Amino acid sequence: MVILGIDPGYAIVGYGAVETVRGNNRMLAYGAITTPAHKPMERRLHEIYTDMKTLLDTVKPDAVAIEELFFNTNITTGIQVAQARGVILLACAERGISIYEYTPLQVKQAVVGYGRAEKHQVMEMTRMMLKLEKMPKPDDAADALAIALCHAQAAGSLLHGLK
Amino acid sequence: MVILGIDPGYAIVGYGAVETVRGNNRMLAYGAITTPAHKPMERRLHEIYTDMKTLLDTVKPDAVAIEELFFNTNITTGIQVAQARGVILLACAERGISIYEYTPLQVKQAVVGYGRAEKHQVMEMTRMMLKLEKMPKPDDAADALAIALCHAQAAGSLLHGLK
Repeated sequence: MVILGIDPGYAIVGYGAVETVRGNNRMLAYGAITTPAHKPMERRLHEIYTDMKTLLDTVKPDAVAIEELFFNTNITTGIQVAQARGVILLACAERGISIYEYTPLQVKQAVVGYGRAEKHQVMEMTRMMLKLEKMPKPDDAADALAIALCHAQAAGSLLHGLK
Repeated sequence: MVILGIDPGYAIVGYGAVETVRGNNRMLAYGAITTPAHKPMERRLHEIYTDMKTLLDTVKPDAVAIEELFFNTNITTGIQVAQARGVILLACAERGISIYEYTPLQVKQAVVGYGRAEKHQVMEMTRMMLKLEKMPKPDDAADALAIALCHAQAAGSLLHGLK
């Protein structure tokens, strides 16, 4: 099963594809979709949407795992991230791919084993689980790989390791 | 100039089209795009996106005026509205239509004359300005017409009544 993890954003969308077979996870691809700050938001959304469709057509994931949004201090940024998340979900809907949503807490619990793990611990465990020599960059791509691993674990326990 | 006002949402998107010629405003169409609550959010976003494109192709607006989002008490609802707003902006971007954003305060000031106007005052003034016999329903459509009128006024003052 191929899982595409997505860390949503409007300036940068992290992605990471993982193939999981009987509990073994292999990194297929990772990177980021970026949009230029000087463009109007609707053009940036259009770029994210177009690049997401290209990414889905390239990776051909069985499932997309995406982080749930939480708003902290900056509501304006939160609105813009949510708008970007909307066009990401739309691209998945158009390709008929199932979407699974996870909270940061769930990702930390799945990857590190406890929900209060620090960001660098999540990234280091992600690197180890995927047997990568170096930490994937940018951070958004590493986060996306962690989200994909979170779904690999959730899906694996659902499937009893059959797939 | 034809202006399409949009009141964004995920369960219901209000729209209202107004033609403005030398300060005279005429209602062309109004209504709402609705999505069923039982469907997954990505399917609802897809319906909004598809219906928005059909609406743009039918109304052929010169400009889209859309309400800026403000988050009050319910953050979860706010995230979902922002996601829907993202696919609405995307549809406009794909059709190459200019987008203008207004705060509720700006809409009230434009339509009623002061920013603390009550909702029913905005709706009544919208009805009168467009010489409508009855209040447009649903409320979301009336709100969308008010947003269109707000842009008609802003654009009119910019154009010095030339168009």
